[in-house]
Amino acid sequence: MPRYKLTIEYDGRPYVGWQRQDNGLGVQQVLEEAIEGFTGEPAPVFVAGRTDAGVHALGQVAHVDLTQDWETDTVRDAINFHVKPHPIAVLTAEIVDQEFHARFSACGRSYQYRIVNRRPPPTLDRGRVWWVPTPLDAAAMSEGATVLIGNHDFSTFRDSECQAKSPVKTLDELAVTTDSDEIRINARARSFLHHQVRNMVGTLRLLGEGKWTPADLKRALDAKDRTKGGPTAPPDGLYLLAVEY
Amino acid sequence: MPRYKLTIEYDGRPYVGWQRQDNGLGVQQVLEEAIEGFTGEPAPVFVAGRTDAGVHALGQVAHVDLTQDWETDTVRDAINFHVKPHPIAVLTAEIVDQEFHARFSACGRSYQYRIVNRRPPPTLDRGRVWWVPTPLDAAAMSEGATVLIGNHDFSTFRDSECQAKSPVKTLDELAVTTDSDEIRINARARSFLHHQVRNMVGTLRLLGEGKWTPADLKRALDAKDRTKGGPTAPPDGLYLLAVEY
Repeated sequence: MPRYKLTIEYDGRPYVGWQRQDNGLGVQQVLEEAIEGFTGEPAPVFVAGRTDAGVHALGQVAHVDLTQDWETDTVRDAINFHVKPHPIAVLTAEIVDQEFHARFSACGRSYQYRIVNRRPPPTLDRGRVWWVPTPLDAAAMSEGATVLIGNHDFSTFRDSECQAKSPVKTLDELAVTTDSDEIRINARARSFLHHQVRNMVGTLRLLGEGKWTPADLKRALDAKDRTKGGPTAPPDGLYLLAVEY
Repeated sequence: MPRYKLTIEYDGRPYVGWQRQDNGLGVQQVLEEAIEGFTGEPAPVFVAGRTDAGVHALGQVAHVDLTQDWETDTVRDAINFHVKPHPIAVLTAEIVDQEFHARFSACGRSYQYRIVNRRPPPTLDRGRVWWVPTPLDAAAMSEGATVLIGNHDFSTFRDSECQAKSPVKTLDELAVTTDSDEIRINARARSFLHHQVRNMVGTLRLLGEGKWTPADLKRALDAKDRTKGGPTAPPDGLYLLAVEY
């Protein structure tokens, strides 16, 4: 019974998120049905990052056990065939040993958040970026981001529905870069709290607008209280980039 | 009666192309209705490049004469307000003199064609790229492209419905670059024949697949016969990048 590691790309817009839910279609369900369509047998898919509704993935990772010993290219192509017409694609399939677990073996997760900072609304990138029409000072956001890097209690950026045992996480990277009218925020950590990236981005916007200083951000972090943080950025701009093992 | 130069971005997917047509909505109609919604008066919009159905624009240029002397930011924001919810946006509005004509004053047009060359289908970029699952040799395409640069009779790459007076054009740039699994073809000329970029790209694919050599491409060009060229690439991957004046 070989275990396959799948690297997956998807457009998050049509889905209620990764997980199966009662109120709509999850990416997981689409993939599990495609795998069953291909193998004829139901098989649960385990994922590294349970993305929320509207959040995209360029390098999500999942694993699945199949009863037959398929060629990895066959697994990739057959799932992609059965997943049509959904905007979900398996980029690579690899055989891994039984010790590998997409979620528990992961030692790093990278996200990117894209803000389009211009007065006209996005067209081609609608639903794929956060449109902020008021001018943002990316340098101020970049300076503020350094306050959050490191090992902290991130309760201020934790959704009330978060199921993590502890609010203490180590944020390895929070880098703000610009490319023409786009501001990109790259975040990397072993794991994140629920909504942590979106809550950090929504708060960094306050620094970009000049409403908050890095000292305000430090005070908010130290308060360990979600009500002291900024608003939650929308899912549109968030991409799960990669998972490290 | 000031003349405004508008730089426009749009997602080409929902439209029959730039021009008003009987069989569906054109970008031109949406913009003209938005302008009338804002000014209360009908005003024709003249464009630099009449893009086809499904072709996108990042820097289309058009001009329009308005009876009132509006601030340029007001023109931009009011059109963007009235154009909602269409994926069309005016990026900038500038006042130009009456000699300026978006189409006839243009001295250069730049297009980019995006090919995603990988086995899995695109997800987030569906409708925005040409998906070619078979491996392409970008270096061979790049070498072949040099055959087409310069002043030539481009009849081999001209659509039968093309209304240009002459098939002779000067192609200033045809550059093939790669970025991970994407192949980008940048083309620049004073003007192009109808479907010229898509016909050149469809033919370059034959070189990328190793089916054609640069000598084959030269023979096809010299034949001045559309039936000797390669197939037409789909509109999905084509972007009007910029117009020079």
